[in-house]
Order: sequence, then structure tokens, then C-alpha cells
Amino acid sequence: MNQSVQEPSIASHPDRLLPTETGARNVARELLADVENLPIISPHGHVPASLFVDDAAFPDPTALLITPDHYVTRLIHSSGIPLHDLGVGNPSVDSREAWRRFAKAWPLFEGTASGYWLRGEFEHIFDIPGSLIDLLPSGGGDAVYDALTTKLTDPEFRPRQLFTGFGLEVLATTDDPLDSLGDHATLAADPTFSGRVLPTFRPDAYLNPSQHGWQERVSRLMDEAAEGLTGFAGYLRALENRRAHFIEHGAVSADHGVRTPRTVRLEAQEAASLFSRAQSGLATAADQELFEAHMLYEMARMSVEDGLVMTLHPGSFRNHHTPSLERYGPDTGHDIPIAINYTEGIRPILQHFGDAEGFHLVLFTLDETVLSREIAPMAGFYPSVFIGAPWWFLDAPDAMLRFRSAITETAGFSRTSGFIDDTRAFCSIPARHDASRRIEASFLARLVTEHRISEERAHELIVDIVDRAPRRVFKL
Amino acid sequence: MNQSVQEPSIASHPDRLLPTETGARNVARELLADVENLPIISPHGHVPASLFVDDAAFPDPTALLITPDHYVTRLIHSSGIPLHDLGVGNPSVDSREAWRRFAKAWPLFEGTASGYWLRGEFEHIFDIPGSLIDLLPSGGGDAVYDALTTKLTDPEFRPRQLFTGFGLEVLATTDDPLDSLGDHATLAADPTFSGRVLPTFRPDAYLNPSQHGWQERVSRLMDEAAEGLTGFAGYLRALENRRAHFIEHGAVSADHGVRTPRTVRLEAQEAASLFSRAQSGLATAADQELFEAHMLYEMARMSVEDGLVMTLHPGSFRNHHTPSLERYGPDTGHDIPIAINYTEGIRPILQHFGDAEGFHLVLFTLDETVLSREIAPMAGFYPSVFIGAPWWFLDAPDAMLRFRSAITETAGFSRTSGFIDDTRAFCSIPARHDASRRIEASFLARLVTEHRISEERAHELIVDIVDRAPRRVFKL
Amino acid sequence: MNQSVQEPSIASHPDRLLPTETGARNVARELLADVENLPIISPHGHVPASLFVDDAAFPDPTALLITPDHYVTRLIHSSGIPLHDLGVGNPSVDSREAWRRFAKAWPLFEGTASGYWLRGEFEHIFDIPGSLIDLLPSGGGDAVYDALTTKLTDPEFRPRQLFTGFGLEVLATTDDPLDSLGDHATLAADPTFSGRVLPTFRPDAYLNPSQHGWQERVSRLMDEAAEGLTGFAGYLRALENRRAHFIEHGAVSADHGVRTPRTVRLEAQEAASLFSRAQSGLATAADQELFEAHMLYEMARMSVEDGLVMTLHPGSFRNHHTPSLERYGPDTGHDIPIAINYTEGIRPILQHFGDAEGFHLVLFTLDETVLSREIAPMAGFYPSVFIGAPWWFLDAPDAMLRFRSAITETAGFSRTSGFIDDTRAFCSIPARHDASRRIEASFLARLVTEHRISEERAHELIVDIVDRAPRRVFKL
Repeated sequence: MNQSVQEPSIASHPDRLLPTETGARNVARELLADVENLPIISPHGHVPASLFVDDAAFPDPTALLITPDHYVTRLIHSSGIPLHDLGVGNPSVDSREAWRRFAKAWPLFEGTASGYWLRGEFEHIFDIPGSLIDLLPSGGGDAVYDALTTKLTDPEFRPRQLFTGFGLEVLATTDDPLDSLGDHATLAADPTFSGRVLPTFRPDAYLNPSQHGWQERVSRLMDEAAEGLTGFAGYLRALENRRAHFIEHGAVSADHGVRTPRTVRLEAQEAASLFSRAQSGLATAADQELFEAHMLYEMARMSVEDGLVMTLHPGSFRNHHTPSLERYGPDTGHDIPIAINYTEGIRPILQHFGDAEGFHLVLFTLDETVLSREIAPMAGFYPSVFIGAPWWFLDAPDAMLRFRSAITETAGFSRTSGFIDDTRAFCSIPARHDASRRIEASFLARLVTEHRISEERAHELIVDIVDRAPRRVFKL
Repeated sequence: MNQSVQEPSIASHPDRLLPTETGARNVARELLADVENLPIISPHGHVPASLFVDDAAFPDPTALLITPDHYVTRLIHSSGIPLHDLGVGNPSVDSREAWRRFAKAWPLFEGTASGYWLRGEFEHIFDIPGSLIDLLPSGGGDAVYDALTTKLTDPEFRPRQLFTGFGLEVLATTDDPLDSLGDHATLAADPTFSGRVLPTFRPDAYLNPSQHGWQERVSRLMDEAAEGLTGFAGYLRALENRRAHFIEHGAVSADHGVRTPRTVRLEAQEAASLFSRAQSGLATAADQELFEAHMLYEMARMSVEDGLVMTLHPGSFRNHHTPSLERYGPDTGHDIPIAINYTEGIRPILQHFGDAEGFHLVLFTLDETVLSREIAPMAGFYPSVFIGAPWWFLDAPDAMLRFRSAITETAGFSRTSGFIDDTRAFCSIPARHDASRRIEASFLARLVTEHRISEERAHELIVDIVDRAPRRVFKL
Repeated sequence: MNQSVQEPSIASHPDRLLPTETGARNVARELLADVENLPIISPHGHVPASLFVDDAAFPDPTALLITPDHYVTRLIHSSGIPLHDLGVGNPSVDSREAWRRFAKAWPLFEGTASGYWLRGEFEHIFDIPGSLIDLLPSGGGDAVYDALTTKLTDPEFRPRQLFTGFGLEVLATTDDPLDSLGDHATLAADPTFSGRVLPTFRPDAYLNPSQHGWQERVSRLMDEAAEGLTGFAGYLRALENRRAHFIEHGAVSADHGVRTPRTVRLEAQEAASLFSRAQSGLATAADQELFEAHMLYEMARMSVEDGLVMTLHPGSFRNHHTPSLERYGPDTGHDIPIAINYTEGIRPILQHFGDAEGFHLVLFTLDETVLSREIAPMAGFYPSVFIGAPWWFLDAPDAMLRFRSAITETAGFSRTSGFIDDTRAFCSIPARHDASRRIEASFLARLVTEHRISEERAHELIVDIVDRAPRRVFKL
């Protein structure tokens, strides 16, 4: 086993992430072959549409792969490197110096999901050989940096070319309700660009009065879209109108990132009076929370009416480290999960809309305990409930296997959303989907070799999981 | 691997559910052989005793296998089929039409516990070949329906014959405290029926004042068995008397299905005054909860005194979807688990009775997190505490393996209850026990091949787990 | 597979705890070889320093291996044997009789962590053959007892000789803040003893006003070390001084065993006034809790200032069974875990000291759910946070594998503490570290055979995990 020089690299090994045991591995290989080259469908993520409108060359390796990827910067930060030395909140950072810090920190990523994705990006997108990647911490940083820099000047490595090269068919962005969606319109109208880039309605900042600037945002929202109506009625109308605007521009879903999945259905009058209090800045913290919980209910109601798939991403304590928030802004690596209660939290939604025609509610979690206990049992009863793919810290090989193990025996395969990459890191998309497909093949292969499903059926299931599920659940 | 035509069917493969790796599989096969044909002991379940008193032919395949099995109807419902189209709350449903809906929905069950049990029932009880089962969604529904219908007219497929054919030795039912237990008496007195069908005392509806009809039920209870005593003393006396009645009819356990395992020990006077308030309809929600928590304590006290094994099934949010409850009644597939706290919840019971002579308290959970954290540590200290087998959504292969992994290193094998099928679906009993035995063999085989227990000892352990544990824990 | 007579015993099998599958097993063997004979570093535990000062022969097998080990007595107790029959709180117990009770109960330990350690102790320290161990429950108890008794008279089996024989390099004790640490000084000054025995500052009983005797203890503390200062300022000064005393005697860490990880940062005046109330016995339960939560913050502050590594061991409901506490005292097997919330609980510490230079905060848990959800995400961002090794009920093979699986994909390998044995049972130390090293090898081997890390890198990682991590994290 020590002739690793002759072995394919980690990122290129045909059996990477597949089971060790020969029987299961052989089945997994055959299952993987069915889906390895299917187009990528990405119904939820954070790549901006402007990337493909501008289609500009990426500036440099650090700005492309390190600075904006909080999965990467956070782990380097844990080793004692300040975020600004990696370019976070620091446009004047020396790109090569920042890269060298990353290169030295490369061993930190062994065994992590980010490490897997980065290897995939280096090797499969940018043709950096695995042997050179292995030299990153021991002086290879500059060589990798230079190789990447050269590639980035090549038109082949512009966003649109990569979009095609990645085999992307659908890519959803995540957008502010007041976004004009001009970039999406531009792309849709452009005959030279064949990919589907769809907006996603993300209204958190307009629903949660405790968020800084809520009053101003709501004023702008109502000015823009309340059709002259005032008060709570105007607010609801404006939200409905912006959703309609999103739908006109191809949106298929509305996404909600809340701390807890608590939902409440208030009487109209109470909701209206909470809204007034919040607008006047008189709402208590409890008022604000109650209002947000009611608005989650209203969002479900609107989804039932306008057909936008409702995706729920609760359970993240955002901006855990205030000093980092103040210095670097949000989404800089210190959002930390907490335990959640879906069963009681979303009951008001399910009481009213659990079997509403066409309603799709996709539940994501950072708290694995709710998978077997709450989400799978709900998805195995309510026609509206779908199980969101492993999210964020859980979109990694072992966690994805735990996910399938936790849900399948209760809810089967028909109730899952298909893989979601949820990433800001455009170049990590192929590696993320690759990992997911390999893990799906591994899980199914085990069921086959344990005689729990037939091999024939496994071949049908893997195509369904990878390709048909996201189309079905996200109405694509 | 593509010659699946020559392979035995999924349900009949001798290695089904056993580990893939050859060494472990071989050990598992030998361990399984020790217990595969042992009699079935079912110390907790929901099959009614009347089934064996009447011994009537089952009406039709749908009424036998689909309509009453909420594991089955819930998953079909999740695909958008209304429950009444499957016969739930709808006696006039066309049985064959409902069956066809099930047949089309058959692929939903791939990888689920229910799918495994149904395949077992079809193939091992009703001799439907696996190749025909595989045709269920593609036009084979009628052929299966017809084959089943024919079988059901055969006297061999009457309940008593099946009871014998299943190898059932003990079957516990679950009964209302005011049940006369006449059916149990009839069966016990019948020389032509050799099985033991034991009642189980299930007093939830008499202990929880928030349940609809509590006052009337308690009045009837006291009229029946309070011996003229009134108030709280009469209520306790009546419960004690009904427990005695159950014990006279062979009951070995009392079962408690509560939302949370919270227990409280009130002073007698406070409990009595809560009881009065509840009887007068003046109890607040908090009063009702407190009273129920105290009554759980009283039930433990009675179990210490009369020897009935106390089984606790907390953590289900019953009737999550009110519209379905109103239309179809309880137990129709929308009971959804919640997180529980056993360590603090049952402490008052263990403070007083944790080492009481002969007290057996069997703790079940739908929240897997309490297994390694709370149940195993308590069972590994308190002589009264036993670890209930994986329950409900967790009585499936992967979940059963997670269960053993979570508890064994702390509590060993001696503190577990033995398998409990907890089912209303009579014909699923053999398949459920078959799955459990295979998983126990798989788990032990892994410990053997990892040199953690000797193969000799594994052979002893599997017999203990499957056969002696339920007899010992349930005092059979 | 039935020639177990020719097989090596369980405790001596070279492949014990390694994966069953041949490919992974071969890699694991090679990885294990790298670390199998490295010195043992034990940065947290409960063996007293006096053991090595006195260096007396152990009295008898029961007093050495059974009575003081609550892992062992608790499980025997669960089978119905009173603790005093095992010598707990009962110095006059007949040692041989107690041993016979243990011998009969030996099968309870099959599959448990304690069983593994005991086999290791018997076989590797005391040369009891595995075949004789297997006879413990069937009459071999006396033979084992006699063999052990003979060994214990041999000077080779005195504590200092064992220390050397175990390959111990560093052993940390756990000590009361008012301990003079004379034993540690004696050992450090003794040229004939080369091991490092380091004290650990454990101030719980001085921080939590709800603990019996808090007022008296605090008075003594302040008399000893407040330098004449009074009130809260004197209390803090005294704590700081005692920490300094510990540091002078080689301490590298301060350990905190709290029920919950809740931390609060109060204004100085509020803290001072709570302190006064607590001293006067006027503090409510809420006051006491709040004060303790603030003191956890103060301990972090002091660790930042004086460099002691802060280890946190929350989540145990101590003395769950009051009658056993009253009869036998604390640490007698009925501390039961509860769920915890680290993300919100320790946020005040991390807000202020999360990236403080040199601050090391090691988070342990009995609640596995926080591993992937809270601890790994925090350790993957904050330079101060390290992931404590699997603790107490979780320091067992399957639990250790679950631990690595839960944390690695988010936090990699660089953020873990290295193995901690945390034991009072001196002779179990080698077996505990042996199990840990085998599991680390097994985990890494799987990543290698799944092509997730290279074999070369795995060889580096295992040495880092076993040897460098504890030195780095505990500043040894």
C-alpha cells in the first residue's frame, strides 16, 4: 500500500468516497455510472446572477477561492490567522501573501468537506496535479498560485464557460425582495447563454423586526409595491407583489433563514397591531419574535397561493462572535447551529396547509437529531413536506450517510429534495455534487448488498434521487 | 451482479439484513441459526384479543393489510392520496380500488421498514412470489389481490391458525382499564387454543384530565371499582382494583403513553385537590399537566406494589394534524415525535423506587438522543430500569443497529427488554421479529469480528437477547 | 470459526477493535504500529498524587479494581447487588466475597467499555490468561483473586513501578484549590521518580453557592489567599492566588464540572452583590445559578490572564439517586447526563476571549448531539476552542468512532484535544489509551480506503492525534 506514487490522486481516484468492501464497492461503481455525468441542478445557492452577466475573468486565486469562502477562512482562522490576513474585509491584502497563508494551512483541511471540494476544484477544474496539491504546505503554494493565475486569464475560465463546463442546467440565486432581477432578465433574454439562472425570494430581513434597518426596508418595500395600501394590509400586498415579480422572472422558491422554526397564526387584527408597534419602534423583543413567527405562517399561506416552493433553513445562531461581525460583517464563519423543534414549531403551518394542493415545504436542518425524530415522520405523512438535503456543516460524506440512514426507513426515498449545494463558492459546485452522487451510490449499494433493495430498483432510485427529485420538488 | 433473476427474492434471501463483509456475514449466519426458529414472544402490542375469539376469516386484503396499518397509509398519503381512498374512515371504499392505489404506491416503500415487513408477509405468509410483488406498481396489483383473496378464504389463514403458524407463544394486547377482559378469559379457558394472550393495562385516558371525556371516564371507573370510596382516594382505589382485575386475567404490564416523561410527587392533599378541580372542570392546563405527572408517579407506586411491569412510551405529539384527527380519528399516521428529557423527568420515580424489589420500569423512546445520554446510563445503575427495544419509527434495521451501538458500551446486553413489535398489524409480527433477530445477529457478529466478544459468548448472548430477556423483563 | 481455543484471547488479539474488512484492517494495523508504543500522556484524570508518594502495595484485588471504580460497581448494582456488598462505603466488606460477586457478574460486562479495560488490566498488567478470565462467572473467581493477590505483593506492582511500566510520561491529577500540593512537590523533587505528575485546579465547590458547605469553603479560601482583601474582590484575588500556586506546582489546566455550560457576564457590582447575598445565605436558587454562570466567565478571564487551559465538563446531573448519595456519597455511579446547549451557553466567554492570545478552552460533552451541531462548528472558527475527546460514557469504541465521524468533516483533526482517560482507576489507564489508539487507527484507515486521505498523510495524522495534540492543547 505504499506505492502511492502510482496510485491516482485522492481527488481523481475512481473509487473515492465509495465503500471499502469489495461487493458494495462494485455495486456502488455501477450505480454511480448512471448519474456521474447527469447535468447539475442547483435549486438553492448563493452565487450572484451578475457573475454571468458580467462574465469577467476572476481576479486572482485568493479572491476566487479563499477570501469569499467562509468554509475555508473559518478553519484557517481557527489556527490563529486573522481573517483580514486572508483578505476578508481587507481589499488591500496582498493576494499572494494571503494564498501562502492558505497553502501553509492546507493540512488543516484533511478529512474535511472543504478539503475534498478544494482538491476537486484544483484538479478537475484547473488541472493542478494531485502531487502538486500535496506540496501546498511545503513550498508548493506559489506554484499552485501561478498555475491558477495563468488559467484565470484563459477565457475558458470565465463564469459562463465554467457554467457550461460544469454541466450546470439550473442555478438558483438568492435575492433581496426588492431586487429588480434585471440580471436574471438579461440572462434569460440572452440567446448566447443557455443556462437557467433563477432568482429565489429571500425576505428574512423584511419579516424580522429585530433586524437592524427593518423599518427602513419595510418602508421601501411598501413604497415600491404596496399599491398605495397602508399598514399591515399594504405590507402583505407588497410582499405578494414582489413574490409575483420573482415568479415572472422564473423564481420557483422562497427561502427562509430563521433562528427557530417557530410559527404562529395570529388573528389579523393582532398581527396588524404588532406590525404598527414594530413600525413605530415600540415592539418588545417578544413582540418582534411573535411577529416573525406569524409572518412565517403568512409566507406559507402565500406559497400555497402563488406556488413558490417554501424552503426553511432554521437553527443557525448567526454572528456568534460580535467582534468579528463588527469588523468583517455577516457570513464570515461564525454562524453556529443550535437545537430546534420542528414538530411543534411548524405545526400551525401544517394544520392549515399540510395537505394543500401543490404546496411544497422543504425542511432543512443543522440539528441532525430532528431527522429521524421529526422531519422524516412529518415528510412520511404530509404531502407538502419534503426532507431537505444535508445542509451546511452536514453536506459531507459521513454526514450524508447518516442523513440517509436517519430518514430512509421512515420516509423512503420519495420524500427527499435532491442535493442542494447552497454555496457562494461557484467553483465548488461540481465537487459538491460529485460527493453527493458518490454517497448516494454508496448508501444504495449497501442496501443492495444487504438485500434490502434489489439492484435493479437501486438503478432506478439513484436517477430519481439525483435528477428527478430536485425537478419534482422544486417544480423545475 | 445482474443475474437477479437467479437470485432469491429480497424477502427470501438467506442473508437479508446481514452484514456485507464476508467474515461478519458468516458469523451472523451462525448466530441467526440459533434463534431463527425460536418461538415469538410479543410482550407489547395492539392486536385485539377478540381476533382470536371470533377467529373469523379476514374480510379482504385491503382491510387486512392496508386500511388499519397507519405505517402503510401514512406514506401513501404523503404521495397525495387521501386517507379515505385507502379505506380509512370509509367502510364503503371499494377494496380492490384501494388496493390498486396501494399497488401503484408500492415503490414508495423501498428501503422502509414497512416495505420489508410487507414483503415478508406477502412471501412468507401468503406465498406470493417475489417476482410478482415486484410487479405491484406495473399492473401486478390485481394478481396479488386475487391471490391474497383466495388465501383468505382458506381456514389455514384464520387468526388462530396464523397464531400457531407464526410460532407465537405469548401475545400481549393493550386494553382499556374498564375492559371486562372477557375475551382474554375465553381464550384462557379454551382448551383448543394454546397461545397465551395477555391483557395490558393502559390507563392514559383516565390519568390525563386534558383528554376529551376524562370526567365521564373517571366517573365510570369509580362507579365500577371505587368500592364506594369518593374523591381522590376512591379514584386511586378504583385504579388499583382494575389493575388487580387485569392481573387476575394474566396481565404482566401496565403501559403509559404520555407526551413527556415528566413525573412529580405531590403531597396527598395537593393531589386530591387537583383531582377535585379536574373533576369539576376547573383545572387549568398547568393543573392538568401536573396531575398527570403525579399520576405517573402513582402508577409507579402501584407497579411496585402489585408487580405489573411499568412501560413508558413518551415523546409522541399525538394527532399533529387536527383536520385528519377530526375526519379520521386518532392513530391515523400523524403522531410526530418530539425531544424528551428522561433524566429529570422520571427522577421522582427513581428517587423512591429506583431500587425497589421487583420493580421493572421499561423506557422506550422515539428520540434517539436519549439512548446513549440518558437511558443507558440509568439502566446501567438502577436495577429497576430496562432499555425498551427500538420503538415505532425506530424498529428498522439501521435504527436498530444505532440503538445497540448507542447503549451497549454503557449498559451491556443484560439491561434490554427484548424485541417489542408494538403493532396493530397482526400479519407483520413474524417479519418484524425476523428483522430484529437478523439485526441482533449482525450487531453481535461485528463485535465478534472486531474481537470485542468471543464467538462462544455471542452464541449465548443472542439466545438471551431474543428469548430470555423478554421473559425476564416482562416476568413471563 | 469455532477453533477459538487456538485463537488469541480477546484482550490480546492483535486486531482487536480494528475494522473487520481486510483492506481497512491492514491499513489500520500499520497506522497502529506508529503509535502503539508511544508514551502515555494523561492530561486529565482523578488518580491522586499521594499514590506515588506513598508507593504502597495495593491492599487487595477488590480494593484496587472493584470498589473504587464506579463504572464497575454501577453495572453490578443494576443487576441487584447492593453497592455495600461490593465494598462501597463499607470498609469491613469481605474482600474475597465482594470479588466473588464481581466474578459472577462478569458476563454483564460483555460488550462494554469497562469489560474491555478490565480484560486488558487482567491480561496485560497482571498476566492472567484470557482462558482463566473467561472462567470468572463459572467458578474461576477465586483463582483470579489469588493470582492477583500474589502479584500485588510483588514490588513490581507498586504504583511507581506501574507508572513506569505503563509508559506514562505525564499524569494530571484533579485537586482542591486549597490543596497544598505537597505531594506534587515531593514527587517533583524526588530524583528517583521521573514521571511528571501535575495538579489540576478544580474550583467547582468554591464557585457554586448551592453546593453544601460553600460558605465555609469560601471563608477558608479567603483566609488562605485573599491577602486581606474582603468581599468579591477578595474572593477573586484568592482564586487568582490559588491558581498561581497551582501553576507554580506545574498545573497546566483548570477544570470545571458544571451542570450546564451557561455563562453570564455580570457587571462587577452585580456580581459583588450576588456574592454578598450568597455569603449571607440569602441567595435564591436563581441567584446561585447566576453567580455560578458569572464565575465561569471569571474563570475564563483568569485563564486568559494566567494561561491555564480551561476544560469544561458540563451536562452531568450529579447524584441522581439521593438515597445512594446519602448512604454512599458522591461519585458512586448515579450521575446521569442531560442535554446541553453550548452555542448559547458559552457565548459570553467567546464574545470576549474567543480569539484571545493563548487561551485554550477544551469542551467536553456527554450529550453527543452537540458534537456535530455545536462543538465542531465552534472549534472550526474560534482559535481558543478545542474539541474534548469522548468523555465518560462515550470513551468506548463505537462512541469514539461516532465522535470522529461527527466532528472531522467540519473541524478536521487539528482541533481535537487528544485522548483523556479521566479515570480514578489507575490500572485502567493503559487499556483506555490502547482502545483509543486502535479506534483512531480504525477511523483513519477507513478514510484511507475510501480515498479521503492519503495513507502517507494518515501516518502523520495518527502521531499528531495521539502524541502532539495533547502536548499542544494542554501546553505540555
